[in-house]
Amino acid sequence: MIVIPQVRPAPTPLPGIEHSTWAGAAEGLSQLSVWRQTLAPGAASPPHRHDCDEVVMCLSGVGEVHTEGQVRRFGADTTVALPRDIVHQLFNVGAEPLHLLAVLAATPVRTELPDGQAIELPWRT
Amino acid sequence: MIVIPQVRPAPTPLPGIEHSTWAGAAEGLSQLSVWRQTLAPGAASPPHRHDCDEVVMCLSGVGEVHTEGQVRRFGADTTVALPRDIVHQLFNVGAEPLHLLAVLAATPVRTELPDGQAIELPWRT
Repeated sequence: MIVIPQVRPAPTPLPGIEHSTWAGAAEGLSQLSVWRQTLAPGAASPPHRHDCDEVVMCLSGVGEVHTEGQVRRFGADTTVALPRDIVHQLFNVGAEPLHLLAVLAATPVRTELPDGQAIELPWRT
Repeated sequence: MIVIPQVRPAPTPLPGIEHSTWAGAAEGLSQLSVWRQTLAPGAASPPHRHDCDEVVMCLSGVGEVHTEGQVRRFGADTTVALPRDIVHQLFNVGAEPLHLLAVLAATPVRTELPDGQAIELPWRT
């Protein structure tokens, strides 16, 4: 068991996406990852999917999630549940930073483009 | 995919423990649960374990986590990583409510006493 400070997200090579890994394999886990991310206004993730469930909790800001056939807006104090393998894309559609906490049922986390090609993420998964 | 409001924890039959299930099987997931809990000053969970990884994020308050051979204090903006099957017990050791966000790599979540006896939790897992 370990107790870890929650490190603030830092810029990544992905435009407008800041990231901090709060928990994963390096913390002794084998099934769970916790990511803290901030999307700048106008920024978006690529469309992608994981081979595990994901839950995204919005801390502040206004986002939009696009999945297969659905577009939903979300804001502070809402949670987005994304079953494994669903293709999804997150957008900051507000004027302020979009602060997110994402939990994923795997570590490391496999991330793929919609066509199945693996994405090499620029952070510790 | 669904977007869900984050419901505030409500009292449970467990003394001093408030709970709200933010995500799990009812939200279309098969591998992940998110629980929001508040422990009153002096309250504690029973010693228990899960057959899955757990990560507890402290939102505010002062807590203590006891595991096999370790006692660690934690507070706001810290994260506790609990590998699967580790016996653990959480205490509110402060004067204010201890606000926690717990994520678990299963749904439903099996919870056991240290001797392996299943605990029937009074909330949706």
